[in-house]
Parts: sequence; structure tokens; C-alpha cells
Amino acid sequence: MRTPGLGAAAVLRALAQLGDVCSLAVASSATLQSLGLGKEAIDYLHSERSRLETESDLKWIESSGATLLPITSEKFPPQLRALRDAPAALYVLGNVDALSQPQVAIVGSRVPTAAGRKFAVQIAAELSGYGLAITSGLARGIDTAAHEAALSAGGRTLAVLGTGPDLCYPADNLALLQRILGNGAVVSEFAPGTPPCRQNFPRRNRIISGLARGTVVVEAATDSGSLITARRALEQGREVFAVPGSPLNPQAAGCLALLREGAHLIRGAADVLEQIEIPIEQNSSSYQCVTDDQKPGGSAHRLDKEYEMLLDALGFEPASIDDLVDRTGFNPGTVASMMLILELEGRVETRPGALFNRVT
Amino acid sequence: MRTPGLGAAAVLRALAQLGDVCSLAVASSATLQSLGLGKEAIDYLHSERSRLETESDLKWIESSGATLLPITSEKFPPQLRALRDAPAALYVLGNVDALSQPQVAIVGSRVPTAAGRKFAVQIAAELSGYGLAITSGLARGIDTAAHEAALSAGGRTLAVLGTGPDLCYPADNLALLQRILGNGAVVSEFAPGTPPCRQNFPRRNRIISGLARGTVVVEAATDSGSLITARRALEQGREVFAVPGSPLNPQAAGCLALLREGAHLIRGAADVLEQIEIPIEQNSSSYQCVTDDQKPGGSAHRLDKEYEMLLDALGFEPASIDDLVDRTGFNPGTVASMMLILELEGRVETRPGALFNRVT
Repeated sequence: MRTPGLGAAAVLRALAQLGDVCSLAVASSATLQSLGLGKEAIDYLHSERSRLETESDLKWIESSGATLLPITSEKFPPQLRALRDAPAALYVLGNVDALSQPQVAIVGSRVPTAAGRKFAVQIAAELSGYGLAITSGLARGIDTAAHEAALSAGGRTLAVLGTGPDLCYPADNLALLQRILGNGAVVSEFAPGTPPCRQNFPRRNRIISGLARGTVVVEAATDSGSLITARRALEQGREVFAVPGSPLNPQAAGCLALLREGAHLIRGAADVLEQIEIPIEQNSSSYQCVTDDQKPGGSAHRLDKEYEMLLDALGFEPASIDDLVDRTGFNPGTVASMMLILELEGRVETRPGALFNRVT
Repeated sequence: MRTPGLGAAAVLRALAQLGDVCSLAVASSATLQSLGLGKEAIDYLHSERSRLETESDLKWIESSGATLLPITSEKFPPQLRALRDAPAALYVLGNVDALSQPQVAIVGSRVPTAAGRKFAVQIAAELSGYGLAITSGLARGIDTAAHEAALSAGGRTLAVLGTGPDLCYPADNLALLQRILGNGAVVSEFAPGTPPCRQNFPRRNRIISGLARGTVVVEAATDSGSLITARRALEQGREVFAVPGSPLNPQAAGCLALLREGAHLIRGAADVLEQIEIPIEQNSSSYQCVTDDQKPGGSAHRLDKEYEMLLDALGFEPASIDDLVDRTGFNPGTVASMMLILELEGRVETRPGALFNRVT
């Protein structure tokens, strides 16, 4: 996970060709090159530093009780696996099964208005009451309000960190983080010790929206990270729910832009539930509402738009990676990684001559 | 105009069969029956009361300088004529040509929040700056704010009354009404002396949205008149613009419902202008932006959805009123009135045997 440029695609290629992921650490340069790894990645894998860091990470995993959940695991949430840039693995502290529970993400401004905070608390409590877990990013403002409201309502909550899984950022949320550990799960794709760093937060945000059935955006300025994440989720065909506000409220500008771009306008939990079509019992507070496409290991989950485009491009005649690159405009690494995921899901099969065939 | 049940449809039939509308007042019972008038209407037309009231109305028109603008006039606004239940005529005080100027309606709560009022003032001033007239209903709250802002911005404004054209309701708006008379126009379909009366306000509201290129709803409770009007305008395929607000603000509930039903979300004048596609010069304050389909007498205006349905039902084979009633589910009177309007516009022609043919 620390190897530069080694993403889910390379991990999946290693799995397909070497039989297991660990073999990457002991493979020759020639083998690694054949898997498409660059010089920087190969140098790192063959370095003393990688051995020390791996040892230290494994020690941390053991001492903390964390789980390192690879994309190949049956417990890896299918909706997250469907992302074109799915993480190769996740560090999970707390209850790994919480990742497969139906979730709604609630994100928004770090400096919300009183009305925004109140709305976040209300909807988090209501959705918790319907058995949905609340996923957020542990940030100040809306994130914190959503986690706390879920806990107060007796529901479950997941925090996805933009730092290593061993750090708490912001530090004032340490008590909250510990309550979440005892309740749901804390998730990170970053190696232990990774400090808060601007460019990691958009990556973190794709995991939040990737885990959830839908993402509720409560107040966001026009240049905010929440807005960027929500736009990407919209492009990926994920459900994005935006809370309206007055055009005179600058904290509402991001949500109003999202609404004009196709996000669902929501007034409360009922508007969210109507859209995500979770089979719910009113006022249920149990966690029993697992649906078919959320079952761990279930493969019949809804495809992201990009996967649908790729399957459409494949059609029912055998095609090579190069053919698919030509037809979709995606880059070769992306296509290779997506095809492997589709193969693991039984949607495509490989044919002699490095060709792929559509199965379903 | 005072005759019970005598609407635009009967007036148009009279025009088609008798050559002029005035003949209705002197026609025999048999002739009136052949035009589809009911007993109540015929009794009224033949009563002493109708002669006294007509005399008194004509006197009022003369003394007030009002214009009685019939649907058959070249100056009758085409967008209003296209309504299925267009008024037979309008009383107009002030400048009749103002009715044909491109307009945006601004309506909303009589008891708005400070933010709602501020938004109404801002957008009315902005739209006025683009040469659009502001149409509203002279009510307290948003209506008053919109009229006043248009006047302050040096723009033009029209008030459509739910009372007779000789009354000012609410009374505190008398000074405003007089400023509007010297600036734009005051319009009513109700006979002089008609007091404010609950059931007349929805009728008034259809004229507001019928005159305008689009209707902006600024704050409306869920059971408000503005909301009912806006829903009807949506159904008729007219542009409805709703101003978002927080779900925690009860005054925003109507607009949020409209937004979920397909109204355009607007954040300011630019979002309105984008949709109505008025050819505008930025910061222009002239009134020169008359477009082809707004020219007085122009017949190529956009059809309402219901007219389109009727033309579709007609197709290009001759059909009778009864055929069209069967195909559309509209009632016979409505179909007859709509067909006459389409005939006046040159879109359909009559054929021997009371059949209609589509021309365009």
C-alpha cells in the first residue's frame, strides 16, 4: 500500500498472474515490469525501506487490532469495489462488517450555519432510526454533527479518515473517534503515520461516497471539497442529495449548484429513503436491512456508469484491452484494472490471445 | 363580461357566427342556445339588470379611461390567449402596450421572511435592468416588494387585480397602485365593483402567469395560492422558477415542493434569463427587447401543452369536436373554444360537416 503508483489495478493483475498479492514483494524486476509496474514502484519494492515500512505496518496492524481489507476480500464493499479508482485495500478499525451495512454519507461545511448543523443532526438521527449507518469524514462542522447524531440516536456510524488509520484529525475529535471505534468502523486507505495533507482529502472523499448508497451534502461553499466530491459522485451516477438553502446564504451556494447539476433536492430523511429504495421498516432501529446487492460477497451489485460504458464498449464479440482503450478513451491501466474487476465478478471472461468476452 | 358562464369560448363562437360580440346582447334565445349558452346566461342577457349593469360598466370605462381589451384584439397578449381558459376580455388601466412587453411574474407569500423580501427586491430590480416588466398581484409581502423594486429600478410593472379594476385591495397599496398606473398597467378580468373574494384569486393568478414569460415564486407556504397557481403553470408547460430555502423555513416549503415537481431552481436573475431566452443587452434599461412571438398581433407564439395535445389529437385528417373530445378527454366547450382560437391563429381550418383540418 505504500508502493508509489501501485493501485488496485496492479494488485489485481498480481492476483491474476501470481496467484497472490504477497508475491509482489518478492518478485523479480522482470516479473514486476510484466505486471506494468514503473521503475519507482519496482525500486521501492526492492528497497530496504520497503521492508522496514512493511514490518512496521504489520506491527501496527497487530498491535492495534486493525484489519487490512484487500479489494479481493468478500468483505470488501461491492459498491466501493465498483469505483474505477477503488482503493487496493482499506485499513479498518472497529467492526469490519459495518462496511457492508447500508449507509448514507452526510458531509458538508466545516463552518456550517446553525440551521445547517441542525439539519445534519435531524437527518442523521432520522436515517439512523431507519437502520442506516451514517458515514462521514470526522471533520469539524457537519461531519462531526452527523457522527454524533447517529451515536446519540443509537445508530451506527463510520468515519473515513484522510490521514493514516492511527491518527486523529482534528485532534479535538479524539473522544468522538473512540466512540465510533466502539460502535461502527474507522476506515483509511492511507498507511499508518500519514499526516493530514491537502491532496489526500479528495481521495478520502471518494471512499465516503463509494461506501454509501447516497451522499447528503449539507451546506458547502462553491469551492469546497464536499462539492468536488459530490460532483464526482454525480458523474459516476451515484445518488447525491443536496439540502437547499437561501441564495442569500453563501454556505448554500455549493448545494444550489449541485441541485442545478442534477442532485436530488431533499427536505428530510423521507426524500432520501424514497430515492435509495432501501427496504425499511418504519422506526426500526435494527441493523437487519441487508439487501441482496449488499450481501458480503454478493456480485450482483449495480454497476457504475463507467463500468457500464466499458461493458457496452466490449459488446459480445471478443476484444483486447487495446480495442477497449480505443473505444472508451480510458487509459490502458484503467481498462485493465476494470476488466479484472469485471472478471472477478463473473461478468467477463478471458479468451486465448488476451481477448475478453462478455458473459452477462 | 358579467353574464354567468359566458367565457372566451362563447365570445369566440359569437364572433365566428354572428360577426361581432355585441350581437350577443340583442340575439334571440334560439340564437343564444345555438351558441351553446345556458338558461342562466340567456336570462341574464335578456334581463333589465344586464342593461343597467352594461350601461354602468360602459360609463365607468369612459370616466376612468380604461380599455376593455377583448381576446380578439391584436393587442391581447398571445401568451395569455393561448391559455385554455383565457379570459374573454380584460379591463386595462394605464398603458395597454405594456401587456405585450416581455414580462416576468414575481409572486409569493404575503408574510415573507426578511430574506424572502430581500430576494424579491433584488431579482425584480435586476430583471427590470434587463428591460423585463415585472408582473404581480398587488398583494402584501412579496408582490408589493416586487412592484416597488421594479418602480425604484426605473423599470415597468403590471398589477393584475383579483377585484374589479376600480378597487384597490389591500387599501394600503393605493399609492403604489397609482404609481403603477402612471408606469405600466393595472389589469382585471372582473367587472367594476367586484369585491375581493376568495375564489377570484386563483382566476387572477392564471392571468399573472399567463401574461409572463415565466413566474418566479419567492417563498410560499404549502397551502398557499401562489403554490396552486405555480402548479397549474407547471402543468401548462409554462416556466416556473422557484427560489430555494432551508427545509427548516416553513415559508420555503412551497418552493421546495415545486422544485421537486420540476420547477427551475433559481439563485438570481441570471438563472431566469438563461431559461426564458429573451434577447437582452446587459444592463440595458430600454424597453426595446420585443421578440417575434411577442409582437402585438403576432400569431407564431409558442403553444401551450394543452393546445399541442389538441393539435396532436387532430392530426392531419378531418375530425369533429366530438372526435376530439373522445381523443383528449377535454370537455366539448373547452375543445370548441380552443379550436376557435386555433382557427383564428390560422392553425386549423373548418371543413364542410363541422369538421376541422389541421393547417400547420
